[in-house]
Amino acid sequence: MINVAIMGYGTIGSGVVEVLEKNKAEITKSAGVAVALKYVLDLREFPDSPIADKIIHDFKVIEKDADVQVVVETMGGLNPAYPFVKASLLAGKHVITSNKALVAAHGTELLAIARDKQVNFFFEASVGGGIPIIRPLYRCLTGEKIEEITGILNGTTNYILTRMDKEGASFAGALREAQELGYAERNPEADVEGRDTCRKIAILLSMAAGKEVNYEDIYTEGITKITDVDFQYAEKLGASVKLFGTGRVEGDQVHAWAAPVMIGKSHPLYMVNDVYNGVMVKGNMLGTTMYYGSGAGKLPTASAVVADIIEAVQNRHQNVAFGWTGEKLEIADMDTSVHRYFIRVAGNTAVNKVRVQEALKAEGIIWLEGLDEFAVLTEKMTEKDLKERLIPMEAVFQSQGEDGVRQMIRTEL
Amino acid sequence: MINVAIMGYGTIGSGVVEVLEKNKAEITKSAGVAVALKYVLDLREFPDSPIADKIIHDFKVIEKDADVQVVVETMGGLNPAYPFVKASLLAGKHVITSNKALVAAHGTELLAIARDKQVNFFFEASVGGGIPIIRPLYRCLTGEKIEEITGILNGTTNYILTRMDKEGASFAGALREAQELGYAERNPEADVEGRDTCRKIAILLSMAAGKEVNYEDIYTEGITKITDVDFQYAEKLGASVKLFGTGRVEGDQVHAWAAPVMIGKSHPLYMVNDVYNGVMVKGNMLGTTMYYGSGAGKLPTASAVVADIIEAVQNRHQNVAFGWTGEKLEIADMDTSVHRYFIRVAGNTAVNKVRVQEALKAEGIIWLEGLDEFAVLTEKMTEKDLKERLIPMEAVFQSQGEDGVRQMIRTEL
Repeated sequence: MINVAIMGYGTIGSGVVEVLEKNKAEITKSAGVAVALKYVLDLREFPDSPIADKIIHDFKVIEKDADVQVVVETMGGLNPAYPFVKASLLAGKHVITSNKALVAAHGTELLAIARDKQVNFFFEASVGGGIPIIRPLYRCLTGEKIEEITGILNGTTNYILTRMDKEGASFAGALREAQELGYAERNPEADVEGRDTCRKIAILLSMAAGKEVNYEDIYTEGITKITDVDFQYAEKLGASVKLFGTGRVEGDQVHAWAAPVMIGKSHPLYMVNDVYNGVMVKGNMLGTTMYYGSGAGKLPTASAVVADIIEAVQNRHQNVAFGWTGEKLEIADMDTSVHRYFIRVAGNTAVNKVRVQEALKAEGIIWLEGLDEFAVLTEKMTEKDLKERLIPMEAVFQSQGEDGVRQMIRTEL
Repeated sequence: MINVAIMGYGTIGSGVVEVLEKNKAEITKSAGVAVALKYVLDLREFPDSPIADKIIHDFKVIEKDADVQVVVETMGGLNPAYPFVKASLLAGKHVITSNKALVAAHGTELLAIARDKQVNFFFEASVGGGIPIIRPLYRCLTGEKIEEITGILNGTTNYILTRMDKEGASFAGALREAQELGYAERNPEADVEGRDTCRKIAILLSMAAGKEVNYEDIYTEGITKITDVDFQYAEKLGASVKLFGTGRVEGDQVHAWAAPVMIGKSHPLYMVNDVYNGVMVKGNMLGTTMYYGSGAGKLPTASAVVADIIEAVQNRHQNVAFGWTGEKLEIADMDTSVHRYFIRVAGNTAVNKVRVQEALKAEGIIWLEGLDEFAVLTEKMTEKDLKERLIPMEAVFQSQGEDGVRQMIRTEL
């Protein structure tokens, strides 16, 4: 029998207890041995819960109990998750976490300790909730050069953008709806500013490249500036706007960003709507693959944690190679990344249109009835090139007392 | 160093050689040791090829060479693939195959020999080409009760149906186009009659259930009777028609079929078009996940074979548990499966419409301008129930000299 301790009896922690109980037969069969819950660490008491007698408040009980072989961390945040996880690994215990902040900030160190101690540090649930995406990277795409990994990694923002797309909702209205349904936090900043997506793409890129990625190197832009007008243009273009986390190999450089991107109906992530997540992986031999499912939610996320527990039990006497080393991955400056841009400009006059088309190497003009503005899609160019073209153009608009550029969204059109 | 022998230097076999060469560095890193090609077994000579000196014609050379640890079977068919694979496993060699016919017919026996000999028999490439789907079932969804697995598993038929959907092509026209592009064989029967899909869903269902599935127990219906008129109705319904392979747990029963199904835009497999494949897996905790990618093609399929080679090398001293036992999975009679049906009936008269609506418990009538027929969507009912309702209805039509039912397609609407 293998004993598990769960740290943090919140949504995911209690979900893990539920999955361990409900799917006991499947888990025992896959793990090859029974998996029993021994402790649940939480500050609170749960006197009426079936796990009331397993609640403890002192981490040292877990750390010192040699009969606990697997520790599950579902507390979130860095403190005390980080010291507890580190101490558990140093005590020779396998650790499973659903905590993207912990993995993005300390993954390299914790994986090194796990290797050193010949235990495992698994974190499938930290990205994409229940979607298997970490494990395919180290189990399935093992013979590939990964050229790109792009995901819709945040359910909250995807719900908001879907409502804006399908119902013409405003950003504020869609956010309020998401909050009422419990999909968005009271303070939604980490989601809508792209910080959650940034950490998740950092983890995926570390896995794909086998190197340490500093998430602070990743260009991050949220969705707060996306408006219902952008979606009106998108509809005319047969497109939508999604918050992407992307890591892309371009020649010798690696670019990475968390940012809104306008995509067409043929993009494999176009149909990833509402709170669902999807991750697209391009390999040099394999081409494009895509993984789709519930990006959050109690039971799907808990299911991913339990799959990690099973793999830890199957490999309880050895460290499974992850390939994520301490070598630093250099992320190239966002200015050198190449995109095609969707640009909205104020002033629906023929002179303005010609000026913008010439300045931005744009072909057609997109115009929506009743608006005092228009939009263009530029040629593909670097962000540096775009900025250098925008500066003199904006200067002319300003000299004439006009507004100029109202919006810029990168596209995959 | 690990030595590999490839049996069959056709499209996939030569693709494996190419991937082993082009991604040598990644493969060595993942496998933890260099992987070298020692023999290529083929009836032909390839004097101008870089592998000319590795070509052999006698399987016994591979069987008797103790330095060959991994054998790749990319010949296809059952003879001599089956005796060669069996002999390789009995000789203590790991075997990787891309051959769905072999796995569907002899998977149980070959997996048992592999367990017995403490080697591995892997077949990721036999279903879904490059898409990781076999491995997620035994590596990722290990703590789940799988409730349904449904795939678009055949690129040829998906290409044909996509052309019929997007361009209004006839079945014959789309098939001809697919043949001209090399997507369909000169004799396309195994694809268009659903036999290829049947074998692939049998393999997936065996993996999901951990039991032996006799593919002959799976109800199989091809796409040859699907017409451009069906797609005109589908368009009006915001739907499409796809060839599905499905295994579904319903209470105590397991149903399985390979058949055309009409699905709406919100179905996760709706956007799987052209030669792409997609597999949807529903777990009791995880909910719906979906896996998408190139279902065929030289390099994607070869990449899946190479991932299997790497896993065999990583586990060269142990048998990886697959959970596919010799226990038989009983597939319930198709008559007891429950669907909502799309039914087209000749004779666009008010009397006929009322008669059909009443007989089939259908709500609305779908009618396309200019056609001497109409269609209905029934309530959900068993196939047995449907047949019992159709018989007296057809009798009335016949007594009046009318055509009656022109089409029946199961739906997920």
